Amino acid sequence: MIIVVKTGTPKNEIETFISFLKKQGVNIHYSEGKYQTILGLVGDTTGINVEIIKANHIVEKIIRIQEPYKRANRLFHPEDTQIDISTPDKTNHIGGKYLSVIAGPCSVESREQIISVARKIKNSGAGFLRGGAFKPRTSPYSFQGLGYEGLDLLLEAKKETGLPIVTELMAIQQLELFDQVDIIQIGARNMQNFSLLKELGHCQKPILLKRGAASTITELLMAAEYIMSGGNSKIILCERGIRTFNDYTRNTLDLSAIPLLKKQTHLPVIVDPSHATGIRWMVTSMSKAAIAAGADGIMVEVHNNPEQALCDGEQSITPEEFEKLMEIIKKYAEIENRLI
Amino acid sequence: MIIVVKTGTPKNEIETFISFLKKQGVNIHYSEGKYQTILGLVGDTTGINVEIIKANHIVEKIIRIQEPYKRANRLFHPEDTQIDISTPDKTNHIGGKYLSVIAGPCSVESREQIISVARKIKNSGAGFLRGGAFKPRTSPYSFQGLGYEGLDLLLEAKKETGLPIVTELMAIQQLELFDQVDIIQIGARNMQNFSLLKELGHCQKPILLKRGAASTITELLMAAEYIMSGGNSKIILCERGIRTFNDYTRNTLDLSAIPLLKKQTHLPVIVDPSHATGIRWMVTSMSKAAIAAGADGIMVEVHNNPEQALCDGEQSITPEEFEKLMEIIKKYAEIENRLI
Amino acid sequence: MIIVVKTGTPKNEIETFISFLKKQGVNIHYSEGKYQTILGLVGDTTGINVEIIKANHIVEKIIRIQEPYKRANRLFHPEDTQIDISTPDKTNHIGGKYLSVIAGPCSVESREQIISVARKIKNSGAGFLRGGAFKPRTSPYSFQGLGYEGLDLLLEAKKETGLPIVTELMAIQQLELFDQVDIIQIGARNMQNFSLLKELGHCQKPILLKRGAASTITELLMAAEYIMSGGNSKIILCERGIRTFNDYTRNTLDLSAIPLLKKQTHLPVIVDPSHATGIRWMVTSMSKAAIAAGADGIMVEVHNNPEQALCDGEQSITPEEFEKLMEIIKKYAEIENRLI
Amino acid sequence: MIIVVKTGTPKNEIETFISFLKKQGVNIHYSEGKYQTILGLVGDTTGINVEIIKANHIVEKIIRIQEPYKRANRLFHPEDTQIDISTPDKTNHIGGKYLSVIAGPCSVESREQIISVARKIKNSGAGFLRGGAFKPRTSPYSFQGLGYEGLDLLLEAKKETGLPIVTELMAIQQLELFDQVDIIQIGARNMQNFSLLKELGHCQKPILLKRGAASTITELLMAAEYIMSGGNSKIILCERGIRTFNDYTRNTLDLSAIPLLKKQTHLPVIVDPSHATGIRWMVTSMSKAAIAAGADGIMVEVHNNPEQALCDGEQSITPEEFEKLMEIIKKYAEIENRLI
Repeated sequence: MIIVVKTGTPKNEIETFISFLKKQGVNIHYSEGKYQTILGLVGDTTGINVEIIKANHIVEKIIRIQEPYKRANRLFHPEDTQIDISTPDKTNHIGGKYLSVIAGPCSVESREQIISVARKIKNSGAGFLRGGAFKPRTSPYSFQGLGYEGLDLLLEAKKETGLPIVTELMAIQQLELFDQVDIIQIGARNMQNFSLLKELGHCQKPILLKRGAASTITELLMAAEYIMSGGNSKIILCERGIRTFNDYTRNTLDLSAIPLLKKQTHLPVIVDPSHATGIRWMVTSMSKAAIAAGADGIMVEVHNNPEQALCDGEQSITPEEFEKLMEIIKKYAEIENRLI
Repeated sequence: MIIVVKTGTPKNEIETFISFLKKQGVNIHYSEGKYQTILGLVGDTTGINVEIIKANHIVEKIIRIQEPYKRANRLFHPEDTQIDISTPDKTNHIGGKYLSVIAGPCSVESREQIISVARKIKNSGAGFLRGGAFKPRTSPYSFQGLGYEGLDLLLEAKKETGLPIVTELMAIQQLELFDQVDIIQIGARNMQNFSLLKELGHCQKPILLKRGAASTITELLMAAEYIMSGGNSKIILCERGIRTFNDYTRNTLDLSAIPLLKKQTHLPVIVDPSHATGIRWMVTSMSKAAIAAGADGIMVEVHNNPEQALCDGEQSITPEEFEKLMEIIKKYAEIENRLI
Repeated sequence: MIIVVKTGTPKNEIETFISFLKKQGVNIHYSEGKYQTILGLVGDTTGINVEIIKANHIVEKIIRIQEPYKRANRLFHPEDTQIDISTPDKTNHIGGKYLSVIAGPCSVESREQIISVARKIKNSGAGFLRGGAFKPRTSPYSFQGLGYEGLDLLLEAKKETGLPIVTELMAIQQLELFDQVDIIQIGARNMQNFSLLKELGHCQKPILLKRGAASTITELLMAAEYIMSGGNSKIILCERGIRTFNDYTRNTLDLSAIPLLKKQTHLPVIVDPSHATGIRWMVTSMSKAAIAAGADGIMVEVHNNPEQALCDGEQSITPEEFEKLMEIIKKYAEIENRLI
Repeated sequence: MIIVVKTGTPKNEIETFISFLKKQGVNIHYSEGKYQTILGLVGDTTGINVEIIKANHIVEKIIRIQEPYKRANRLFHPEDTQIDISTPDKTNHIGGKYLSVIAGPCSVESREQIISVARKIKNSGAGFLRGGAFKPRTSPYSFQGLGYEGLDLLLEAKKETGLPIVTELMAIQQLELFDQVDIIQIGARNMQNFSLLKELGHCQKPILLKRGAASTITELLMAAEYIMSGGNSKIILCERGIRTFNDYTRNTLDLSAIPLLKKQTHLPVIVDPSHATGIRWMVTSMSKAAIAAGADGIMVEVHNNPEQALCDGEQSITPEEFEKLMEIIKKYAEIENRLI
């Protein structure tokens, strides 16, 4: 950590401050420039209270050298994390050599819908079934999901097809009903719901953590750190578009986040091209680009009848379009040496 | 609502679509241009399922004319909402002619701290005491607040000074303990925690709803609408800085949001210059600017010893600095004809 | 064009306004809602003065249905534009079926440097040589390029290798010296230098137009329209990263802009992964993702000795790394059916 | 300057790098942590080539402690810069104790218009007349200004009223005609037109430099530095709104930039509330807020007939509205102890 001291601070005040810092168990490298004095903190700075340093009146600014996340940091865990998910049929993997494809409707609407979609995407080669039971909607007047009934239908589809399921949890009270859910999704708007993240640290389910629409790489990793600090390390990060000034798409897909995240963390990183664009015809090109950029998987919205979908139909593709997408994805997986 | 039809759509498909729309109880104005056909929906469009329209393959895009919020909309509720908060001592008002000043430490740290700050800000003329018991922190390793103990100390300070209190609720399970809290604060990161918003609609406490760092005006008003749709209309909106590319401040204070919000909604709007800037010496200039821009109040972080504060010390001012700020604020209140 | 009339406007004022609009040669569709009245302008609205309409006191807002660009609009020019560039050796193509690779140093530094790099990238399969002679630098104290001398060296490299050259023009006075330059680059910071764009409309050189770091898709296409309205239609658009809140990379590469631009315009679209990331090790993954997303080419910074480069060394790759990149690019070109 | 060395770099490579740095005349503070090694450069780092350091393969990142601007930096020039502008009538001042009001139409349209507006704003107390002759328009099909004729009319208005004039220069070729112009405006889109900035450094006219819509504080000050490095220090900075995700206003006025700029630089800082909002009814509240925030002046669009204005009518106020605004401004100037 580097501390820049305010110009014109009297020497004795700097010395008092240095003594204060040393008492916290770090060494100080002092360098006095003509205009600015800089203090470098050497040693284990993890115990240092940054708030108090920043608040000191002689401090101009502080610069962190070390990342604030530890358990999520690749520096301390160089090898890739691979998450294994077992169903009665087989064990599925996310991360490492594997390229995972998660597909399914935005929301579960009926038994016929979810089972039909599940069967079709399985036939096309998807590894996981997604479907929303509890839906975070911008408007209180929009369809809010089937709730517990939706969850039951999803579990039926799992039973029918053997596909592990991914579904969103919106409040910690719902957790007890997620016993047979394979991967718990935390939506972008809850990425910094710290009360929720803390509780998820105490369960042992894999968590698919979506990046908030205006979250930095560091904030996403700190959200993962919240869960990991509670003891649960099975986290899959998901880039789903960020908020920019762009006026054509719902969000701006940040594919540069993939190599950045893969460098900073050992956790798997997937991409949701459906929410990132909000536009059906962009899903294929963005899926290809995500894999080319190094993503460990994609999550795609597939609906049996997008034009009648109760939510997000404009960004959903049909099972037939998904089948074609899978063919392309397989070519890209091959070129990238990924197991699908 | 305006629907732009995709170029090249066959006439019979447009006609089928128009029939479908008419069945939903609206009239259609059809205008065919050389390159684009446009459908105008006339009548009550609130019952229309926008999702299904957007998802239709002949639709290029839809343009909403009416705002998606109703209860929060000034169009349907032209007069200002004024919120009255009664304590044993007196009734305090937020909104309308009133200019409210909320002050206090980022987090409650001890009995001495909170009571001493409460007394001092009251003497200087603050109308409300703020203090965090449950703290949403970016890092799981930072001080997380005193929790229930902090809440108790805050209630003691209320008893001692008669000041109504404002404190943040992070999870719905905490609600039962907020019985004597006067205003429940919902933090920026929970602005779209829809499960929480829904529950708050069923209580009758005033809610201070902070704008998310990357939320649009519309999203903030939709978050208020969530609470209002449940039956609770006592909402105070709070601008606290948005996320931009700026690299000097924690956030960028969006003061243009004040006149915009005051035009779009009847709810009171206040400003938090402390979080918006993250810098102690900017609080005074931004407080003045907020009042000049038409804010119904400000919320300022005041700490008895900012250099030892357990959180946000670098943006806290001392009670002495707050006293000076209040003198300036009173001048501005006078020039703006606001009651303080 | 849709005009939303302010709530409460007296009927006779609306009628006067409608008469005024009709005089400008358009038909008006009038639809009166309970709260809002909407006017739809039908017919050729290109002659309408939008400014005057927006400024009218009864107008709440206007909504454009048609894009403001014409010559750049794919609606009026459905087939892809392909640009052919002839050198004594052969004719090179950009756009259509072709995937173009432009490579070379950020700035021309010496005869040895530019000729050596030119030879190597040609051997690896690059189609065009880039190199800056006039350099737009954020600081007046940074290396500003070799100027005319740099241009001469670039022309020598062209002579030696037969590669067509791309170099940046910063001011219209330089144009007369660009006679043998094959493609004129306009930098992101000059994307809205309208005086310059107008003049470029009168020359017949291909223009590589970089997207401004905070420019929308529409603004980029309007910048192209400026040049095209003067008579020059040989424009290559270049995505090079946009400004967001991201703190790890110089810019955020917006790959979703590629399919969007390809849909809106017939002009070729390439990607500059070097400036978009500012980081050497991200160039390969972003190049692959760009091609997968549908780009018509990439422009990559290659330097014989990046660690001694006078500018942008940290984002430059070596000729050896470029050779490896070309092998990968060829695989991607094959999978995407592009000619390289 | 702080250099963070890549984890795992062999000691001898670090030593070689340190020798290389020392040869450039700086001392190095070396601190080796368990995971990261940091080099602090002490002494005069202005001669150091940052590019080459960043490009070195052992460098993870560099952190600048000192601001890259010198002449614009308040650190080296603590007192406020005040710019004096003399006309035959009197000497006008910008900066220091003065609060300057610049008013006039977006573009000069006719003799009657400009002279009538000039007289009225002078009567209301404006200190400077603005009016565009050369107009940077987003569309090539929009009104581009009257050009040289507009400039002549502006000079007539100056003669008539004695008001010093402010008008925009778009290309360096126009400079010779700006002889009698008092303040040259450089638009937001030309803020990083470095060729233009360099030339302006060689003239002695005051420059009103508008902040680019997506420019950081540092970039704005580096643009000023470009001009100052050529020898011209008479620069007035102008905040005119930044680009964010906000969807209601043209731009988002960044009033926090005012105290930040006033701290970082000695140059005067004014605000343009008309372009910042693009909405007529927001001008008054944003003007007040700007003065409260510490601005040295405001620049407001005033048009005799906004509904017929050839550009930006929707953000222009009438001379009568301006008169009312001036009365309010005078109250704010008094409370802020500024001379108007």
